[in-house]
Amino acid sequence: MTRQLHLNAFLMTTGHHEASWRLPESDPYAHVDLAHYAGLARTAERGTFDSLFLADGPHLWGSVAQRPAGALEPLTLLTALATATEHIGLIATASTSYNSPYNLARRFASLDIISGGRAGWNIVTTAGAEAARNFGVDEEPAHAERYARAAEFLDVALKLWDSWEDDAIVADKAAGVWGDDAKIHPPRHRGTYFGVEGALNVPRSPQGYPLLVQAGSSEDGKAFAARYAEAVFTAQQTVEEARAFYADLKARTAAAGRDPDHVKVLPGIVPVIGSTEAEARAHEQLLEDHIVHRHGVANLEGLLRLPAGTLELDALLPAELPPEDAIEGARSRYTLVVGLARRERLTVRQLIGRLGGGRGHLTFAGTPEQVADAIETWFTQGAADGFNIMPPVLPSGLETFVDHVVPILRARGLLRTAYGPRRTLRERYGLPRPANQYAAPALATA
Amino acid sequence: MTRQLHLNAFLMTTGHHEASWRLPESDPYAHVDLAHYAGLARTAERGTFDSLFLADGPHLWGSVAQRPAGALEPLTLLTALATATEHIGLIATASTSYNSPYNLARRFASLDIISGGRAGWNIVTTAGAEAARNFGVDEEPAHAERYARAAEFLDVALKLWDSWEDDAIVADKAAGVWGDDAKIHPPRHRGTYFGVEGALNVPRSPQGYPLLVQAGSSEDGKAFAARYAEAVFTAQQTVEEARAFYADLKARTAAAGRDPDHVKVLPGIVPVIGSTEAEARAHEQLLEDHIVHRHGVANLEGLLRLPAGTLELDALLPAELPPEDAIEGARSRYTLVVGLARRERLTVRQLIGRLGGGRGHLTFAGTPEQVADAIETWFTQGAADGFNIMPPVLPSGLETFVDHVVPILRARGLLRTAYGPRRTLRERYGLPRPANQYAAPALATA
Ligand SMILES: Cc1cc2nc3c(=O)[nH]c(=O)nc-3n(C[C@H](O)[C@H](O)[C@H](O)COP(=O)(O)O)c2cc1C
Ligand SMILES: Cc1cc2nc3c(=O)[nH]c(=O)nc-3n(C[C@H](O)[C@H](O)[C@H](O)COP(=O)(O)O)c2cc1C
Repeated sequence: MTRQLHLNAFLMTTGHHEASWRLPESDPYAHVDLAHYAGLARTAERGTFDSLFLADGPHLWGSVAQRPAGALEPLTLLTALATATEHIGLIATASTSYNSPYNLARRFASLDIISGGRAGWNIVTTAGAEAARNFGVDEEPAHAERYARAAEFLDVALKLWDSWEDDAIVADKAAGVWGDDAKIHPPRHRGTYFGVEGALNVPRSPQGYPLLVQAGSSEDGKAFAARYAEAVFTAQQTVEEARAFYADLKARTAAAGRDPDHVKVLPGIVPVIGSTEAEARAHEQLLEDHIVHRHGVANLEGLLRLPAGTLELDALLPAELPPEDAIEGARSRYTLVVGLARRERLTVRQLIGRLGGGRGHLTFAGTPEQVADAIETWFTQGAADGFNIMPPVLPSGLETFVDHVVPILRARGLLRTAYGPRRTLRERYGLPRPANQYAAPALATA
Repeated sequence: MTRQLHLNAFLMTTGHHEASWRLPESDPYAHVDLAHYAGLARTAERGTFDSLFLADGPHLWGSVAQRPAGALEPLTLLTALATATEHIGLIATASTSYNSPYNLARRFASLDIISGGRAGWNIVTTAGAEAARNFGVDEEPAHAERYARAAEFLDVALKLWDSWEDDAIVADKAAGVWGDDAKIHPPRHRGTYFGVEGALNVPRSPQGYPLLVQAGSSEDGKAFAARYAEAVFTAQQTVEEARAFYADLKARTAAAGRDPDHVKVLPGIVPVIGSTEAEARAHEQLLEDHIVHRHGVANLEGLLRLPAGTLELDALLPAELPPEDAIEGARSRYTLVVGLARRERLTVRQLIGRLGGGRGHLTFAGTPEQVADAIETWFTQGAADGFNIMPPVLPSGLETFVDHVVPILRARGLLRTAYGPRRTLRERYGLPRPANQYAAPALATA
């Protein structure tokens, strides 16, 4: 079989464009509406996407005046979506900085069981002091420390997910023996950040553990991805940059002793689709016209760690900005945004317009053919194993993609036409089920 | 309308009897089978129960040889069950000792939204060092300390659930204003156990917050219930003891300045039902015959904090046992078990048989009429506002109850015959929706 695309539907309330909620078609209460999300999930399943994905952070972000704020907790929402769908993978974001391994490992195992092996975890370390202060921590933990904790978190979680061997349940009613205690392996972990003594209180799940996804783009983030990640989300503006990122990540993965094919790289794309290019551009302009610029300025000042009132709407960014390594928060996003503004000499207003759609992800306006061409180019030129599809407006943007771009990708042999018999998320991404670290290696059988 | 019973289905894998999994009818993999639980939930809904309930603890309990061990995480499972049911309340156990308020408050708010106002929280402080050691704590926290943390947890959680006023969302598309920042109230909490600065990242839910349930029976536990609980689960062996508990709890609630009618007391009952009394007793005997006594002895030694090998199967309990206040764990369960053994002069074997069904809850074997009589007696004699129904074998025990006991209770006017228009769990329990602590009191309108 020829290599095929992996598509992930990145779902965000009324869409990725920050002004999407203001369009007449949008439901401003969609962020807490299960039916809205179930409809999106079924649309993505109609498009034979590999998975859908929910971003998250454990704090209320900024002013609620700006746009739909707050969201259903992702693992909770994905559990409900598991019952509304049959095939599609379900990737939830959860923070290693503000969870404990025992509880989180168990919740992912439970979702994996309930969904029949469709769970994935977008592992994030959570930037920002706002989140820290909701968990009794006054200062944002240092970037390096957050990644050190994340690595220990993963090691413990992997032990917990392996703490039941696959055949630990005997179910011998006659003898009155339900399980085999010899196949239960308490982690007995005592580390820098965590102490976890006992085995998980849920058996090993269909996938062994959820698909591990990661999106950190800093040095620490890429090192972490090379070690643990099976799929990587990334924001890239040009095919050249994306190719460099792709090659770098595959090389790091190989250097970490893993098969580079076992990490799938998915850049994000915000497809603004029209039946003509002009129609697509008009749709893009309509969205941009709905941006409230005073919010955009405040957000940009926050990202760049500038005092309020520093930026002027019709001027360039200031020549002097804090260096990347002074940013303890979303470091690589900072670099990307500053790079974009400098490269294209954008005013603050123009930069806000460009970021309004995808917050740093590639926005691509065009016809379905043009969107398919862009996807095919990146895919065949070593820039991507697939894409994070980020519709600017939901549900319409996803429907348009599925109805008009998906058929083209299928006709070109780039996308499955049906799900087929393989069921788990890891199988969809072409990855093997992980062996249990405590189990005796299986003997080769004839 | 005459006062009616509140029924809660306490679901536990293959049933509450510890040997239930060994019966031919039982599925030993039921503990991780969503379809099993969805079937139970629909059966309870057919019986117009108020709610169903899942117990929990964040550790693997004892040896897996004994009986089905591990369980799907309750909030996750209940989210899936929310989509499989329409009316029934969904009560999840979660620990105040091993969760953080921000994450847990958000998860309950999310379940409440997804279920349309059907979420409930069984608030537990989690006894035992096994759980502590899964969260980096070497020693079991002291009983009083666990309750002090629980009280602060509740205060923070209540602030978080009120941090959005009900009308915080404005959704003014034309003006580009989604929410009203003046109606968002960050807790800014700095206490002994928790620091929580910001507002919750999910709007106020249909019930305001989940129904608050509690089951602590120690002095601290009852004081906590009087202050916060809207429903109380309890294990009582005799109607006299249950009446005393009921009167005590209502008095404490009134003394705490709350309406005693706003806390519903639900003792547990394990109904072993037969079409004749002899058939019921034979069923009870069949279950007892499947008990593996060596496990029962080990469990009892654990509860009583005795060294392994202390107890003899055909002897009475030792005359000397640790006093109740030396037990930092499940204190009231200890008192109940010792009291039962002493009062009825039970051997260890007999005690294990009695505990096998309900772990200290009342086991009642009889015909549907007799079960209905027992329920009516307790209900009308000031011992209960309803019951925690704990079928010894599942699903059959719940089906038998719904098909044969429920019609009798309905015929006597003690139980609703249909759910009617009121939808939230709190409405089912006859409780008002809580006001928001930050909102201006509503003006009386004509
Ligand atoms: C597609 C995509 C989705 C992301 N989703 C989240 C998220 O849900 N929560 C979060 O805290 N960070 C999220 N991030 C941020 C990354 O996890 C990471 O923190 C960021 O790229 C900065 O990299 P660094 O942490 O290595 O400095 C996302 C990034 C990308 C590219
Ligand atoms: C019906 C019922 C259900 C209970 N469920 C749980 C549970 O799921 N998890 C838990 O840790 N404790 C559970 N308990 C124990 C109580 O929360 C409480 O810890 C116990 O009754 C001892 O009381 P105390 O904590 O006040 O000493 C339950 C008790 C009863 C009566």
